[in-house]
Amino acid sequence: MSDENLGAKSGQKKPKAERRPRAETPRGFRDYFGAEVTARRDMLAAITAVYHRYGFDPLETSAVETVEALGKFLPDVDRPNEGVFGWQENEAEGADWLALRYDLTAPLARVAAQYRNDLPTPYRRYAFGPVWRNEKPGPGRFRQFYQCDADTIGAASVAADAEICAMLADALEAAGIDRGDYVIKVNNRKVLNGVMEVAGVLDSFDPDKHAEERGIVLRAIDKFDRLGTEGVRALLGAGRKDESGDFAKGAGLSEAQADVVMGFTAARRETGPATLARLRELVGHSAIGTEGVNELSEIAALLAAQGYGPDRIILDPGVVRGLGYYTGPVYEAELTFEILDEKGRKRQFGSVAGGGRYDDLVKRFTGQAVPATGVSIGVDRLLAALTAKGRGAVDSAGPVVVTVMDRERMADYMAMVGELRSAGIRAEVYLGNPKQFGNQLKYADKRASPIAVIQGGDEAAKGTIVLKDLILGAQIAQNATLEEWKGRPAQVEVPRTDLVAAVQKMLGGGK
Amino acid sequence: MSDENLGAKSGQKKPKAERRPRAETPRGFRDYFGAEVTARRDMLAAITAVYHRYGFDPLETSAVETVEALGKFLPDVDRPNEGVFGWQENEAEGADWLALRYDLTAPLARVAAQYRNDLPTPYRRYAFGPVWRNEKPGPGRFRQFYQCDADTIGAASVAADAEICAMLADALEAAGIDRGDYVIKVNNRKVLNGVMEVAGVLDSFDPDKHAEERGIVLRAIDKFDRLGTEGVRALLGAGRKDESGDFAKGAGLSEAQADVVMGFTAARRETGPATLARLRELVGHSAIGTEGVNELSEIAALLAAQGYGPDRIILDPGVVRGLGYYTGPVYEAELTFEILDEKGRKRQFGSVAGGGRYDDLVKRFTGQAVPATGVSIGVDRLLAALTAKGRGAVDSAGPVVVTVMDRERMADYMAMVGELRSAGIRAEVYLGNPKQFGNQLKYADKRASPIAVIQGGDEAAKGTIVLKDLILGAQIAQNATLEEWKGRPAQVEVPRTDLVAAVQKMLGGGK
Repeated sequence: MSDENLGAKSGQKKPKAERRPRAETPRGFRDYFGAEVTARRDMLAAITAVYHRYGFDPLETSAVETVEALGKFLPDVDRPNEGVFGWQENEAEGADWLALRYDLTAPLARVAAQYRNDLPTPYRRYAFGPVWRNEKPGPGRFRQFYQCDADTIGAASVAADAEICAMLADALEAAGIDRGDYVIKVNNRKVLNGVMEVAGVLDSFDPDKHAEERGIVLRAIDKFDRLGTEGVRALLGAGRKDESGDFAKGAGLSEAQADVVMGFTAARRETGPATLARLRELVGHSAIGTEGVNELSEIAALLAAQGYGPDRIILDPGVVRGLGYYTGPVYEAELTFEILDEKGRKRQFGSVAGGGRYDDLVKRFTGQAVPATGVSIGVDRLLAALTAKGRGAVDSAGPVVVTVMDRERMADYMAMVGELRSAGIRAEVYLGNPKQFGNQLKYADKRASPIAVIQGGDEAAKGTIVLKDLILGAQIAQNATLEEWKGRPAQVEVPRTDLVAAVQKMLGGGK
Repeated sequence: MSDENLGAKSGQKKPKAERRPRAETPRGFRDYFGAEVTARRDMLAAITAVYHRYGFDPLETSAVETVEALGKFLPDVDRPNEGVFGWQENEAEGADWLALRYDLTAPLARVAAQYRNDLPTPYRRYAFGPVWRNEKPGPGRFRQFYQCDADTIGAASVAADAEICAMLADALEAAGIDRGDYVIKVNNRKVLNGVMEVAGVLDSFDPDKHAEERGIVLRAIDKFDRLGTEGVRALLGAGRKDESGDFAKGAGLSEAQADVVMGFTAARRETGPATLARLRELVGHSAIGTEGVNELSEIAALLAAQGYGPDRIILDPGVVRGLGYYTGPVYEAELTFEILDEKGRKRQFGSVAGGGRYDDLVKRFTGQAVPATGVSIGVDRLLAALTAKGRGAVDSAGPVVVTVMDRERMADYMAMVGELRSAGIRAEVYLGNPKQFGNQLKYADKRASPIAVIQGGDEAAKGTIVLKDLILGAQIAQNATLEEWKGRPAQVEVPRTDLVAAVQKMLGGGK
C-alpha cells in the first residue's frame, strides 16, 4: 500500500511511519447499530406486509443505474452534475456513465419499460432500500437514506390512486402510528392547472407557454408551511429575499392573478363535499380543472365507501408536492402530533410520505404514455416519529452472559449457552480476557444483559450454578433503602441441571 | 434534458426525435422480482435469527466508504484502480476518493477502530447487504451481490472461532440445508506456516523473507479442487500454463519442499484425532506449527463438547482460504450434495461460506493489534443451493382478484377487497381497463391468483357473487377427462355476505 496518498487531506505533515488511514465514516454518511437496525427492519416488515396484502409484489433493483436511464442528471465533460454520485464505466470513448439511484421511482420506470412484455398489467410493485443524494449534508440530513415505495403501473383509473391512499393509511397504522395522529391529504394537479388556466398562466392550446411561471407557482405553494401567506404571495409576484439575503425570482403574476392562486390554496372547507364545491367555483369553465375536480370527487367517493373518512384521509388543495412530474392526483401523509424542535418550540411533526400520479416517466423510454401512480415513505423520518412517540427501538434485550471463572472449562460454559440457545434464549459465553471478573460484569452491563451465569470451582464441585439477576440488581442499587427489595435475592444458586428452567423463571420475573 | 448525450453508445445515428434512453440494467447488474426478493429476505431472517440468539448485534454501515478506509484499493491519478467502483468527492485538491464497499469486513474494521471506546469488548456483530465489485461480469457472476457476515472483534481465544463454526452450522440448517447436506471444514494458517517452516519457506526470525513464495503456495492450495494434485505441484515448483495458455509463475520449491507441502494438503485422516496426530508429525519442531495444531485441537474439543461431531464439522488441512489476511483458524462451509453443472455433469455444489481469524485489519487504523474472527455467507450461492434442492422461492401465492364487471360500481368492488384484506387475505381489484373480461382473467392467471371474484349486474341484483376457483380450473383444464373432477365445481355462486367465508373455504380446499 502506498502511504503517500493517505492522510493527505488532514493538512498536517506527519512523520511517514505514523501515517495511518483515518477510521471515519465518509462525510454525510452514518452507521446504524443494534436496535437502530432492527427497529427499521421491523417497521419495514410491518409496512410491506400491508403492501403484500394489497397485492403488491416486491422488486429489488440494484443500487447502480446508467445515468442515461436515471435521466434527470446527465454528465458534463468531466463528471456528472451535482445531485448524484456518478462515475464513468471505463475510459473508453462513449463508455456509460453509472450512478447510484437517487430514488426508487426512476429505476421502476426503467424496469416497467425494460420488462413491459413480461410484467402483468397493471403492475403493482413495492420496493424499499437506500437511495443516495450527492448533496451538502446537514444536521440530520444524510447522503444515504431509506425509502419505501409502492406504485401501480398501467392503471389509468383513479381507483388506483384511491387504493394507494387507503393502503398508506393502513401502512402507517401497521408501523405504529395511531389513528388520529396522522392525516393523508389528497389533491389533484389538474385542479391547480385549472386554476392556472383561470388565472391566465396556462394556455391549453399552447401548454409550453408560461411553463417557467407555473413551476415557480408550484414550488411556492409547496413551501406554504415554511413561507406563510406573505412569502408565497411575494413569490407569485415579483419575488422575495430569503433569510440569507438571496433573492428568489417570482412568477411575475399580477395581484388579480395571485388572488386566484391564493384562493386555491385556501380552498379547503370543513367537509370534502364543501371543498369540492369551492374548487368547482375556482376552476370555472376550465376543462382540465373540471376533470381534476371530478377525479378528486371520485377518489373521495371510493375512499368513503371503504370507510376511510376524514379522520384518516381529507381533500386539501394546499398540497401540491414539489416534483415537476406529477400529472394528476397528489397525496401526502402528515403526522399531526406535536414534537419539540431543536429550539424547544412545539411544532407539528409534518410530512412522512408523499406521492401522486406521473403518467410520463415510462414514456421517456418507450414513447408510449403509461399511466402510473405511487407513494414513497420517508423511512428514516417515520422511524424518528416512532421514536418521538416512544415506540422506536424497543427490542434491545441483551443476551444472557455465561461468565468464565476457569478458562480450562470453556467447553462446559459453551455447553451452557448451547442449552440456553436451544431453548430459544439469547445467550453467549464471555469471550474476552477472563482474568478480571469485574470486566466480565461490566461487559454484561454494556450488553444490557438480563442475567449473568457464574460457575466457579466450588459450584462445579457441588454441581450448581449461580444466576445473577442484573436487572433486579441495578434496581436494588438505585433504591437500596426501599423496603420492597428486602428478601428479593438478586442472586440464586441452583443445580446445574436446572439452568434453563431457572433462567426462564428469572427472565419472566424480571419484567 | 439534453438529448445530445443520450444513446451515444448505441453507435447508430438515429434521427434526433427518436432518440430515447435505453431501458437497460447496467452491464453486470440485475433486477430481482417477487419471490426472488422474498426468498432472500426469508433466508436472511432465518440466518440472522440464529446470529441474534448467539448474542450478535446488527450493524449497518453505508454502501459508501472512503477509499482510504477501504484500504486495499487506492486511486491512481485519474481513477481508482480496478476492483472497486470509486469516484472523487469533488474537484478540490486532495479531496477524498469514495468507493462502494467490496465486502462487509473492511467497513467493520473501520467501525471497530472508529468506535473503539464505545463498543463492548468483545464486539459481536452481524451484517448483511449488497457489496459491489468492479469486475468483468460473467454468466451468474454479478457486480452487485449479497453477503451475510458475523464477526467477533476483540476475542483472542479460539473459543470465538469454535463458536462461529457452530453458529454457521446452525445458520445453514435454519436456512433450510439439511444436516448431512453440508460440512464445515476447519483448518489453521499457523499449521500451514509450521509446514512452510519445515519446508524452509518461512524463517521465523525473518518473516518477510519468502513472503512471495508463500503467497503462491497459499493460492495454489486454495485452488486444489480446480487444479488437482498435478496442477498444485506445478505451481509449487516452476509454474504452469493454464487452459488459456497464460503461464503462471510457480513458488520455485524443490521436489523435497513440495513433498512437505503436498503432505500437508493430504493430511486429513478418518477422524479428527488422527488428523491432529498427522499434523503434529508434519510441523515437527516448528513453534508456530505446534501452536496451530494446539489451537485446532482446542477448537475440536470445544465443538465436540457441544455435540458438533464430524457429521457437521471436520478438520481438513486442505482448506486454506485464498485471502492473505487470515492469521489463524480458517473455516469453510461446503454443500456436499450433487447438482448438474451447465454441461450436465454431476458435481458437488461446493463452498457457500468461509472465514477465519484476521488479527491485523483493525491495526491498520489504530496501530494496535485487535484479535478478530468471522464468517461470510455467500447469500446468492446459498439461495441457489436452496433452489437446487427445491426449497427456494416457495411463497408466490398470488392475490384473490376481484374483477370489474361494471366500472360504475368500483366502490362495491373495493369494499370486497377491503373485507378480504381485513381477514388477512391477499386481495386486489382489477385496476386495468375492464372492457375485455378475458384480459381480467389473463391478468389473474399471470398473478398466480387462486380465486377470481365476479359480480355483474345480475348477481348484484340477486345479492350474490360468483367465485371462480382458478387453481382447480387449471387442473380440470389439464385433465378434463378424469373422473375425479366430475361434480367438483370450479365455480360457485354464494350470497355477497358470505364473501370472506366462501373465499376462505375455497383457499383451504385448493391445497
